[in-house]
Amino acid sequence: MAVGHFPMPVLPPIDGIRLASVAAGIRYADRKDLLIMEIAEGATTAGVFTQNAFCAAPVALCKRHLPGPIRYLLVNSGNANACTGEQGLADAEASCAKIAELAGVAVEQVLPFSTGVIGEPLAMDKILAGIPEAMGSLTANSWTQAAEAIMTTDTRAKGATQSFVWQGQTITVNGISKGSGMINPNMATMLAYIATDASVDESVLQDLLKQSTEASFNRITVDGDTSTNDSCILVATGKAGNELLKTTEGELYSALLEAIKTVQIDLAKAIVTDGEGATKFITVNVAGGAVPKECLDVAYAVAHSPLVKTAFFASDANWGRIVAAIGYSGVDQLDDRLVTVALNDVLIVENGGRASSYQEQAGQAVMDLESISINIDLNRGDCFERVWTTDLSHDYITINAEYRS
Amino acid sequence: MAVGHFPMPVLPPIDGIRLASVAAGIRYADRKDLLIMEIAEGATTAGVFTQNAFCAAPVALCKRHLPGPIRYLLVNSGNANACTGEQGLADAEASCAKIAELAGVAVEQVLPFSTGVIGEPLAMDKILAGIPEAMGSLTANSWTQAAEAIMTTDTRAKGATQSFVWQGQTITVNGISKGSGMINPNMATMLAYIATDASVDESVLQDLLKQSTEASFNRITVDGDTSTNDSCILVATGKAGNELLKTTEGELYSALLEAIKTVQIDLAKAIVTDGEGATKFITVNVAGGAVPKECLDVAYAVAHSPLVKTAFFASDANWGRIVAAIGYSGVDQLDDRLVTVALNDVLIVENGGRASSYQEQAGQAVMDLESISINIDLNRGDCFERVWTTDLSHDYITINAEYRS
Repeated sequence: MAVGHFPMPVLPPIDGIRLASVAAGIRYADRKDLLIMEIAEGATTAGVFTQNAFCAAPVALCKRHLPGPIRYLLVNSGNANACTGEQGLADAEASCAKIAELAGVAVEQVLPFSTGVIGEPLAMDKILAGIPEAMGSLTANSWTQAAEAIMTTDTRAKGATQSFVWQGQTITVNGISKGSGMINPNMATMLAYIATDASVDESVLQDLLKQSTEASFNRITVDGDTSTNDSCILVATGKAGNELLKTTEGELYSALLEAIKTVQIDLAKAIVTDGEGATKFITVNVAGGAVPKECLDVAYAVAHSPLVKTAFFASDANWGRIVAAIGYSGVDQLDDRLVTVALNDVLIVENGGRASSYQEQAGQAVMDLESISINIDLNRGDCFERVWTTDLSHDYITINAEYRS
Repeated sequence: MAVGHFPMPVLPPIDGIRLASVAAGIRYADRKDLLIMEIAEGATTAGVFTQNAFCAAPVALCKRHLPGPIRYLLVNSGNANACTGEQGLADAEASCAKIAELAGVAVEQVLPFSTGVIGEPLAMDKILAGIPEAMGSLTANSWTQAAEAIMTTDTRAKGATQSFVWQGQTITVNGISKGSGMINPNMATMLAYIATDASVDESVLQDLLKQSTEASFNRITVDGDTSTNDSCILVATGKAGNELLKTTEGELYSALLEAIKTVQIDLAKAIVTDGEGATKFITVNVAGGAVPKECLDVAYAVAHSPLVKTAFFASDANWGRIVAAIGYSGVDQLDDRLVTVALNDVLIVENGGRASSYQEQAGQAVMDLESISINIDLNRGDCFERVWTTDLSHDYITINAEYRS
């Protein structure tokens, strides 16, 4: 189940990046499950990772190996290599060492990533056999296959691209991601790989990634569960030929941030619309907060509420549940008489109760749509935050009762 | 759907309490939906209420009328009278006034309670017609019918009783409650009425209720949603003839607290086992915390996780999801290598991974049970907390997609 039809766009090559994906048979036969991304010499790499205390072995290793210089990313789906203790770390290192040996680079120049079932040892024989095959088939034109190789319960491959011209030179940003359940901010159960041909200083790159992630992957939730493996990597190959970007100010910085943010928001929305069992795409807009945090608290209380999500699944304009969630979001001294709630542009709640103008059929007309905005105004300040989520359906239960993640 | 078979026990009369319930037709025909509890003169009354900022009109009125002296409680099911603005307050007051007029007491001596759908005006004609009928049929022996009259999506009436002998005199504590969905601490979507014939000073009574609620209703969760209407009332009629309890120390205080706590825990568990769509009763025990809060944070992260709850619905010993929830619970500097997790007495996780002694069939044997304990030890302190919850099933979705709460 997934909301809408969002085919993955064709991603152009990024000079300095080559990809290869193979079916190594890690969990399923005949399904691409191993991706290698080769990064040209001279590139810079930044990463942000899950804040889960039980972070997976590959995440621990990524943190050790960064900032690099990184030359290879290795991703497997089907097994998360999480909660696998010392053996998990050794396996992740052995995978990196295999690539390092074949490519003649240091083991610290390889970053490993895993996604899939938690708590089972990696099928190392299959991974070590798949690596040489992938290393022999690297090309610049296989972004779509790369996006396919990292899928788990995803029903569609996710990719996005943006480009802009800077001083006569085209700069491109590509991104691919996976993620469908165990989706929550900081970060979702997701892997994302963003690459640009711009030339960017390492610390500026980290800043770009942090800001862009905050506005995208840290604003989505499917089920409120934060995974052990979430990773988002941003690579700048420097092949576009621009002068090295060394500051977090100026036009190039702004243009690049905008492009990266657009790519990441596209990917974030693709994850939500492909959320497990999703039948609705819900945007929760919270305006009028005194500080950003209270807008976010309200937005997440609404976005996480199983009662709200179930009502959306039923296309029931059950605004009482939205109001109840706003009420328990923990905002200090919230005055319920000031709060307004609208579904798209249909005002439903004002003065602590149902809006006098509200007609049930107008609310129902909005609920029948596939993409719906819940517009909340706390009317106590100027802050605004936005969160994207889905409904909660029978298919979510079926998927997660049957899939061992 | 509900877990196990827990018929409501027969509750003995409490001297000083009379009850009557009638079918007023508030939402459904021929279903008891209006309860009046009469409290004898000289009693003391305490209350704790929802912390939801959008608290319902009756909750606002209860807070105004307490501490009393209270003489009547009026409860209707079928309509929550929440998010009903000024009209809701006026309706709640008119209901109290009707009883006050018939009984010759002040309007402030009546407490109103409502549970059911949010955002719709009360059917005042039906309530005002039902009140005289109920006032004419008060008896000491209708606790079961009272418990039935306050049900909404509950599938069974909930009651509990305890008694003990103090200086040759039997002291009894009765309790009834309702609640099934929108269940979360602080407090659940629940109404509960506890009564004892002990003689207790008003401020001591409030202390007893607060302590007992913290150990019972504030330790359960079904779906993480906190309602607009939660109320728990404790009445002490003073008819048992003990000397007035004026301190929060001593043997009588301890015995009474224990009895009230036992009644409230019985009611809390009855709410969870009757949780919407529940097929499992899950106890989350968290030991070894440095402070109580971190035990609670871990317990609630596990108890709220849709992925953990769905795995229990599937009877799948998917411990990776439990570990992931512990990991994102926000405990500062949690060392994943120290944490152990067991299902009942089957150790599953140690040293950051699967326990070497763990056999999948042993975990499966526990998961096949209807009542399961998740035993977590953080091994960083001496604190312990316990939370009760349920699984997340297809029936939860069905109930909440079809019921307008």
